[in-house]
Parts: sequence; C-alpha cells; structure tokens
Amino acid sequence: MRSISILGATGSIGASTLDLIRRNRDQWRVVALTANSNAAELAKLAREFSAEVAVVADEGCLPALRESLSGTSIAAMAGSAALIEAGARPADVTVAAIVGCAGLAPTMAAIAQGRTVALANKEALVSAGEVMTAAVARSGATLLPVDSEHNAIFQCLAGNDLAHVRWITLTASGGPFRDWPAERLAHATPAEAVKHPNWAMGAKISVDSATMMNKGLEYIEAFHLFPVGTERLRIIVHPQSIVHSMVEYRDGSTLAQLGPSDMRVPIASALAWPARMDTPCAPLDLAAIGELTFRSPDETRFPATRLAREAAAAGGGVPAVLNAANEVAVAAFLDGKLAFTRIAAQVEETLGAFAPGVPATLEEVIALDAEARARTRELMEPA
Amino acid sequence: MRSISILGATGSIGASTLDLIRRNRDQWRVVALTANSNAAELAKLAREFSAEVAVVADEGCLPALRESLSGTSIAAMAGSAALIEAGARPADVTVAAIVGCAGLAPTMAAIAQGRTVALANKEALVSAGEVMTAAVARSGATLLPVDSEHNAIFQCLAGNDLAHVRWITLTASGGPFRDWPAERLAHATPAEAVKHPNWAMGAKISVDSATMMNKGLEYIEAFHLFPVGTERLRIIVHPQSIVHSMVEYRDGSTLAQLGPSDMRVPIASALAWPARMDTPCAPLDLAAIGELTFRSPDETRFPATRLAREAAAAGGGVPAVLNAANEVAVAAFLDGKLAFTRIAAQVEETLGAFAPGVPATLEEVIALDAEARARTRELMEPA
Repeated sequence: MRSISILGATGSIGASTLDLIRRNRDQWRVVALTANSNAAELAKLAREFSAEVAVVADEGCLPALRESLSGTSIAAMAGSAALIEAGARPADVTVAAIVGCAGLAPTMAAIAQGRTVALANKEALVSAGEVMTAAVARSGATLLPVDSEHNAIFQCLAGNDLAHVRWITLTASGGPFRDWPAERLAHATPAEAVKHPNWAMGAKISVDSATMMNKGLEYIEAFHLFPVGTERLRIIVHPQSIVHSMVEYRDGSTLAQLGPSDMRVPIASALAWPARMDTPCAPLDLAAIGELTFRSPDETRFPATRLAREAAAAGGGVPAVLNAANEVAVAAFLDGKLAFTRIAAQVEETLGAFAPGVPATLEEVIALDAEARARTRELMEPA
Repeated sequence: MRSISILGATGSIGASTLDLIRRNRDQWRVVALTANSNAAELAKLAREFSAEVAVVADEGCLPALRESLSGTSIAAMAGSAALIEAGARPADVTVAAIVGCAGLAPTMAAIAQGRTVALANKEALVSAGEVMTAAVARSGATLLPVDSEHNAIFQCLAGNDLAHVRWITLTASGGPFRDWPAERLAHATPAEAVKHPNWAMGAKISVDSATMMNKGLEYIEAFHLFPVGTERLRIIVHPQSIVHSMVEYRDGSTLAQLGPSDMRVPIASALAWPARMDTPCAPLDLAAIGELTFRSPDETRFPATRLAREAAAAGGGVPAVLNAANEVAVAAFLDGKLAFTRIAAQVEETLGAFAPGVPATLEEVIALDAEARARTRELMEPA
C-alpha cells in the first residue's frame, strides 16, 4: 500500500492519475487532492478515493467544498497556504499537476520534503528550472517526469550515467502546421491551430504545439532534468508521435521509448517506478502502424525551438521571460489580435528588449514572470 | 584495467572485439586468444596484444603457432583441452565467439567459473539452451548477449523485472527474399541467398537469413536468455535493421534499441557493461534515414520461425535437432542439392521423424546433434 497526493486533481493529468488509482484501489491510499475552483468535482473525487484532505485554491469556493464534504471525515481547506500544506504532506508520491505559476509553490513544498515528485507542471522547470533543481539537490527529492517526452528520456536513461550520453533527442509531432509553407503560416487562424493531430489538448498548449514552442518549453525542461548541455540535446520531427524520445550513448546504442498517445503510460511509469504497473493501454502494434518517419526541424518556419535552445543556454531568468512572453503572445493570437507567425517574433522581441537578472528564489521567478508579461504587453501595444 | 579472453579471436566477432580493445589499450589486459587453425593470424594478434596464452584448436597447427611466437613469453597451446583451459582462465570478461559446436565446451568452462561471459556462440543457447542456463544458474555467471538483437533486449530490460514484460519483440530484416512471391522462392539460388541487404555475413548465416531460420535460431536464444515464454516472445519484420529489438512493459511503454549494423556496438555494450565505452560508430541520423517500417512475418512463405517457436516451446532436445537438421539442409542447398524452400521443409520432416530425449549434459547435446545430422542425411537421401 502506497500513499499519493495529487496537486491538480481535476485537470487532465489528475484525471488520468486517478483512473490508474481507481484500477488499483487496494494498492493506494489518497492523501491530498487539490483543484483550482471546481469544488463539486473535487469533493466527488475526494469522497470516491477517501482522501484525507481536499484543497481548493480559490477561497471563495471553500463553502461549497465544505458543503459537499459534510458528513465525511475529509478535511476541506482553501487558499495558497493550504495548497502548499497539501504539497508538503507526507506521501510516497506527490503528483505535481497544477497548471501554470500557481503550481510552483506547492510543487516546491513537496520537493523541499525530499519526497518523490511526479512532475507534470511545466512552469516548474521552464521558469524556475535553476531554483527547482537547486531545491532538488538540497532536499534529495526524486523528480520523476510525467511529460511523455521526459518520461521517455528518463526510461531510456535507466541505469546509465549522463556522462555516457552522446545525444538526447526529443521527438516532436511538428504540430498541425508541420507541412504548411511559410506564406500560409502567416494567415493561420486560432481554429486551425487548436486541431492537434495526435493529442487532445487545451487551446494554449495546442497553439504551442502549432508554433513548436511546446517543444521548445520541453527542451528547456529536458535541459534541467538531464543536464547534458544544449550541445547534446536536440529535437527531431516525428509526425506519428509513437517514439516519445531517445537517448544515444557513446557506444552508438540508441534507446527509444515508444507508446500510445495516452498520458496514463508515462503517469503509470512514474507512479510505479522503479517497478511497473498495469494500464489498460493497448499493446503497440508496429506492424499495423507500418511506418515511423523522421525529419529535421525547420527552424526557419518554426523559430520557437531555436529561441528555447538559446534561452536554455543563456540560463538565469531568460527561460522565464521566454515562457511569459509566449503566454501573452499566444493569448493575443487566440484573441485574434496577433498573427500566428508574430507569436515567436514577439517572444524574440521581448527577449531582446530586456536583460533579466538571475532569480534565486521562487518569489523572484514569479516577479520576473509578471514583469515579462507586462513588458510583452507594452511592446505589443505601443503608445 | 580489466582483463579479457577471446575464444574465437580470428573470426569476425573476435576482430570487432580486438578493434575496440586496440582503441582502448590502456584499459584492457588480454589473457587468452584462441583460433581454429589460423596460427599465423592468431600469433600476430597475440603479439600485438601481449596475450598470456594463444590456443589453436587444430593440434596440427601447434608447430606453426610455436614458431610464430618464438622469442615472446606468450604460451602456445593446442587442442580441445587447451581451449577449455583458455575458457576457464581468470578474466573479467570472456568473449565466447567460437562458431558451432566446437565452442560449446570452452564456453561452458567460462560459465562454470561464474565469470562474465559475452556470448556470441549461437549453438550454446540454441542446441544446449537448457544445459547452459542450468550451468549459469549453478555458477552465478553473468551472461551478456553479443548478438545485436539479444544485446538490444538486454539493454531494453535494464533495471526491469521480466515479470513486468508484456512482449519481447525480435526484429528481423526479412532477408534478401523478403518480398519474393512463393513461386519464385522455390527457384532461389545459393548466389541469390548469400546477398544480405544489411549485414556482411558468411554463406551459412546468409542462407539462414534468407529462410528466416536465423531469426528462428535467435528466437530460441531469446527464449532461453529472457524466459518470458513463447506467448510473450514474437518477431516483427523491420527491413531497415535500425531497431534491433524491443521490450514492451505491462504499462504500455515499449523500449527499443536502435543503432548501426555494426557488431562493435553490441560488443562494446557487453564489454563495458554496466558502464559504456566509446566506439567509432557514427551517430544515428534518423532524419537522414527518414523512415522505419514494420510488418508481420509471413510464416507461409517463411515457415522457419514457426518451426523455431514450436521447437522452443517443445524444449528438451528439439531445438538441437532443428539446428542440426538446418545445418545439413543449408549445406545441401549451398551444394545445389536441395531447393531453397526444401530447407525448412526438410527441417520439419527431421523434427517429425524422431522424438529426441532431453539432453542433460554437453556430451548428450553433442551426441544428439550428431544423431540429428545423420538422420537428416538419411531422410534426404532415401535408399
């Protein structure tokens, strides 16, 4: 019997995690579940899994959560301090799946306890990579990446030293505009951008997939998780999204991890590590799939991966600025106020417009994030 | 500094192994080198690598070996007892690369010492699988497979328990007749059969590749090395021979090992295990390769893999009979005395013609091998 907390239980990673727990109820005890504002769903899950505590970020939702949990022994809490307390609670695995900067502090709280953290919060490593990895080094926490690409790399590295790595190669689907000529990209609409070929995703991440900034952000995450340097970390386009990433060793051996486009596979890998657990995912049928194709990324049409690589190499606050500028630019694109090809251009302009310091704490990261957003808005809307 | 013996130093595995040692001379001390009859080449290698002992299997070649080694402190020996003594000599790694039944006893001698054995002798596991694995269990030896497919599986299994395996999938190039219709196969000539698309190989193994019996023999080896049972061990055709094999886990994760068609990659993996060593093999460039394709094997045109699977499941002496019958049939094909499609048919007839016992010792395996060869010849040449 192992214990688990899920920070961000009502999101898609939370739902996939709980689906796996549901199939193995006798093996897991649920400690804390958290949500942003969906008190009804959170209460339903907390009841189903007999959680110790349910935490809603939005304090205005606490009465509804209390009401829904009345008659149970489940503690209802709310607010950012309660989220941090949920992250710090003893659990064998803490799944960090709160989206955005809101997830940083609870994730850091789990890391500070030296626990096993299954990490699905991208901002943790993109914006706060150096702060986060320093905290992991201090506490001795075990970081198990849940993103399919990073989990793939983690599996391919099993038992091997990074010193023996020749290349780490992140695969990219190339997104819905993979084969579009540059002229057409300039006129791409939000509706076109949110149709991702292989994964069902939200609007923001779908646009990131279309610009390939999603792969850029994953590149920065990989840079922190697997510190081989930008000279040994690269991206390859693989439209079928069957190979989730690869590691090549100095002897010429490449290990690749393959699987369906189902987040339950990497989540199960993280939950059961170093063992394995069953998932209901169908076996891989490569004979039915027939072919796997690969090509080099085109950084002329899709400059985002270049920007991310440069940001990773620059370090300090630069990746946080890239991430913040991208979020603002993507929102403007989704609002119809920015052309598709201007998203990466705007990120590059913001990066060029100010030299961020090196944030040493989470608070400094969050302040830099806010500053970079404001600066990007200014740059986009000249007086 | 580690020590190494190479049983079969003048063959292709021996040459690839010594190429790697040559590039890392300061890290390796060479103990024993052996050859079948090429005393001149053996003496040259023994001098170059300052071996402790050089052993030639053919006793008639001993004078030539002594002559070539005169003036050195390298001991020259000959005969089967000397080969066994070479296998038993203390070394950190013993590479078992003698081809055929002649390699069995020296390989067993290394295994009996509980050493690390880098295994490239197919007969060890095909004909003497149960005897060999029982000896490994008794002595606590570490068997590191050097065949590219088995080494790939070994790497994909690193850190994982066989209990978590859903499928082990051996890849097969499909051989030079992969796309030939059945009618044309019946008229395939030895010259056509020895042109292998991806690997430079000898005539016998090239014919085995063309019939897919090579993959069948590898299937039997894998059955013994990774005992998941025939119901979790399968073959997939992958013409590019880039993916060398795969392991799928119960969570839906598949790990694959990819690399160039260069035996130095799996040899380096075995020599350096659990670390890694450099090879001069070029990095994998999947963008240049472009595509990897996969299809199910066609056991109607290529029944050899079915025969091998059935032989593995039957166990006891059956795989040894399959191997012996195949060697006789392939020799007859190469002599122009048997049609290509009769090779597998002859193997099936031999398997049907007698029920072998369960050999418990190497001597019984060798006796069964001889009996099966004789029986196959009788069946092929009715009175």
